[in-house]
Amino acid sequence: MSFQKVLIANRGEIAVRIIRACREMGISTVAVYSEPDHDSLHVKLADEAYCIGPTLSKDSYLNITNIMSVASLTECDAIHPGYGFLAENADFAEICESCNITFIGPSADAINRMGDKAVAKQTMKDAGVPVIPGSDGLVEDMNEAIMIARDIGYPVIIKATAGGGGKGIRIADDEESLVKQITQAQQEAQKAFGNAGVYLEKYLTGMKHVEIQIIADTFGNAVHLGERDCSVQRRRQKLVEEAPCPVLSSDVRERMGAAAVRAAKAVQYSGAGTLEFLLGSDDQFYFMEMNTRIQVEHPVTEMVTGVDLIKEMVSVAEGNPLSFSQEDVVINGWSIECRINAENPDKGFMPAPGTIQFYLPPGGPGVRVDSAAYPGYTISPFYDSMIAKLIVWAPTREEAIAKMKRALLEFDIEGIYTTIPFHQKLLNHPVFIKGDFDIKFLEEHEV
Amino acid sequence: MSFQKVLIANRGEIAVRIIRACREMGISTVAVYSEPDHDSLHVKLADEAYCIGPTLSKDSYLNITNIMSVASLTECDAIHPGYGFLAENADFAEICESCNITFIGPSADAINRMGDKAVAKQTMKDAGVPVIPGSDGLVEDMNEAIMIARDIGYPVIIKATAGGGGKGIRIADDEESLVKQITQAQQEAQKAFGNAGVYLEKYLTGMKHVEIQIIADTFGNAVHLGERDCSVQRRRQKLVEEAPCPVLSSDVRERMGAAAVRAAKAVQYSGAGTLEFLLGSDDQFYFMEMNTRIQVEHPVTEMVTGVDLIKEMVSVAEGNPLSFSQEDVVINGWSIECRINAENPDKGFMPAPGTIQFYLPPGGPGVRVDSAAYPGYTISPFYDSMIAKLIVWAPTREEAIAKMKRALLEFDIEGIYTTIPFHQKLLNHPVFIKGDFDIKFLEEHEV
Repeated sequence: MSFQKVLIANRGEIAVRIIRACREMGISTVAVYSEPDHDSLHVKLADEAYCIGPTLSKDSYLNITNIMSVASLTECDAIHPGYGFLAENADFAEICESCNITFIGPSADAINRMGDKAVAKQTMKDAGVPVIPGSDGLVEDMNEAIMIARDIGYPVIIKATAGGGGKGIRIADDEESLVKQITQAQQEAQKAFGNAGVYLEKYLTGMKHVEIQIIADTFGNAVHLGERDCSVQRRRQKLVEEAPCPVLSSDVRERMGAAAVRAAKAVQYSGAGTLEFLLGSDDQFYFMEMNTRIQVEHPVTEMVTGVDLIKEMVSVAEGNPLSFSQEDVVINGWSIECRINAENPDKGFMPAPGTIQFYLPPGGPGVRVDSAAYPGYTISPFYDSMIAKLIVWAPTREEAIAKMKRALLEFDIEGIYTTIPFHQKLLNHPVFIKGDFDIKFLEEHEV
Repeated sequence: MSFQKVLIANRGEIAVRIIRACREMGISTVAVYSEPDHDSLHVKLADEAYCIGPTLSKDSYLNITNIMSVASLTECDAIHPGYGFLAENADFAEICESCNITFIGPSADAINRMGDKAVAKQTMKDAGVPVIPGSDGLVEDMNEAIMIARDIGYPVIIKATAGGGGKGIRIADDEESLVKQITQAQQEAQKAFGNAGVYLEKYLTGMKHVEIQIIADTFGNAVHLGERDCSVQRRRQKLVEEAPCPVLSSDVRERMGAAAVRAAKAVQYSGAGTLEFLLGSDDQFYFMEMNTRIQVEHPVTEMVTGVDLIKEMVSVAEGNPLSFSQEDVVINGWSIECRINAENPDKGFMPAPGTIQFYLPPGGPGVRVDSAAYPGYTISPFYDSMIAKLIVWAPTREEAIAKMKRALLEFDIEGIYTTIPFHQKLLNHPVFIKGDFDIKFLEEHEV
């Protein structure tokens, strides 16, 4: 089946990204938007656009009823959820299917099995994917928690099974701290996610965040497209991503890739997904979580593989087999992405919404800008503060860094604070240049 | 020797392109500009910028005295001439060398030998490169012209030896027309180029304009980087270029490439250069001329080879050997470039200078924009009317065309007429889509 029309249940740069892919595939696009987003670029670029509610996400971008009404009235064949909002909502995926509208992503079952972190961990373990030492599944009571922590050794990390993306996490350095925090963690998880379940893991240090991009079709084919190093994080939020990972040997890459493919096959995965791992300096790696959607940082993988991940997602959702096999995937050169946010890096990265008075993105060879910004556009305080993803490609890491510095210098955004000055300092930092930094880099170094 | 500082003796997008390459190489840049260009992007982006004279090119961008003064006062190691202006001026290259400033391009001798079209043709013939049947060198008198024309057959083309880029060309369909035009052509050539010499060639029809990019170092190494098809022309001006050429077999590519490398070696060429050929539907190709400089359409070659031609030019001018050899050159995927000009396609492509009120270039994967435009920039009536080069890359020609159509639709330039609507029609034209069009395409078809 070829899709004639796709609804994009998202906003901002990822909505624009999906519209671009669909247009190139000859597929019509339907944008949806909240009231304050009526001037957004995704609204201007789509073939059709419909308002689905007021400002708050729960009333608009999470408003399944209104989104499904638009999809059905406009006779869409499929919905692409982007990332965030409804992208990992298994109920939404199920509702789509029950309305005979294809959800461009994995099955509700796969989303569920990966969305519950304790279940996901067990699934990975069963598939022979290394996991972080810790509780097998949820911690039932305090005594069990204490026993497990003694067994794996402190510090330990308490994770909400319904959490993800850095949310619902606490660290205990000793037994006293564990006892104090475990009940708090359960109460918090109940409140935040409607699920009090928590599990324990050894708190590993000196680790890199390295993730594997996979894509799978509905015929049981799954391939990986190499890794991304996302260790530059601030409060567990990724700021800079690159592919490949500067310290990964091809042997470890192959083992991580094979583990990711096993994981995908274990849940009959289809579509694009990411296996997030912690990688130690001893080359041991451990499964953290799987994101069952396209990720913000997918472009660096596209730049080094030449694969258009959004088009491939759409194609497999149409029922086509993958257009390439594992042997076709060749990692070529180096790519870095900087997330340019409307934040004031001198004031603790405080969000700084406002109107862009002048906007000129950088250009020239090896520079890609994924953005929904334009001159005169107002960054809303109600949604995330990302203005643009600046992505570069060059034959080597050294050249990619030089290109990113050049591109950051050119990027002219006036009228609001941005994180461009932060990125400029980061790219000149000797630890970043060396490339072997771990996820504590920004905690431990002044940038 | 590593350059510390390079002067860019040009304006517009190519000046910006060279500044970008230098900055990524860690080289400081000096821009020069005419009085009306004080707000130009190349002035803003360079590390230093100096006014070199009033509006007319002869007083500013062709003002060798002023340019050399700036280069010497700012202690530049080298000058990059871009294209046009002084790029193929052998005197300028010589003056640079005599001032101990490296001219980033071939030697004055190579420029001279290729600048005189009759000498170039003989040089090519001697190097075993196929040339168009015609006079061996200049036509001395009318009788000789008539004899040659009878020998090669009508129609014949009369070319000024000092011409180039489509200038100084006349076509004679029969002996009467030849007799009438040859004296006129000589007089015109004397007036336009200060050189009355003309030569005759058979006027070939049904030909494609296919050119080979070469790059050579000062150690005698020369490689080619495949071809560009530039057959979409209007009054001999290129409008759309692509790489590879849709009808070229790998066998013919190899023979053309080998001929281009022989040509480069025959004149001890160094730097980037282009051999322009006519290619017939019988796969026969004939040397037209060599451009001893970087060309407007160089990006399509960069997109399919991954080579940064400007950086490589700078590197070989620094005295380094080529960073790659012929076997390293792999043509990957497809690239198309559209020249977006400030012209009104509905009024015979009349130049339409003016102020850009709104400017938003397209982005996303596989889209590259080389431009000196920005919101509020005024396109001057005094220089060429190009606003931007829009370049795309995709795995196949079909996908590249789809991507270009998507990018053209997104490209938002308000306040002036542009050739975007022309390109949109062209890309939907069945003859363009088929790919086997010749250089008469736009004369013979309504777009």
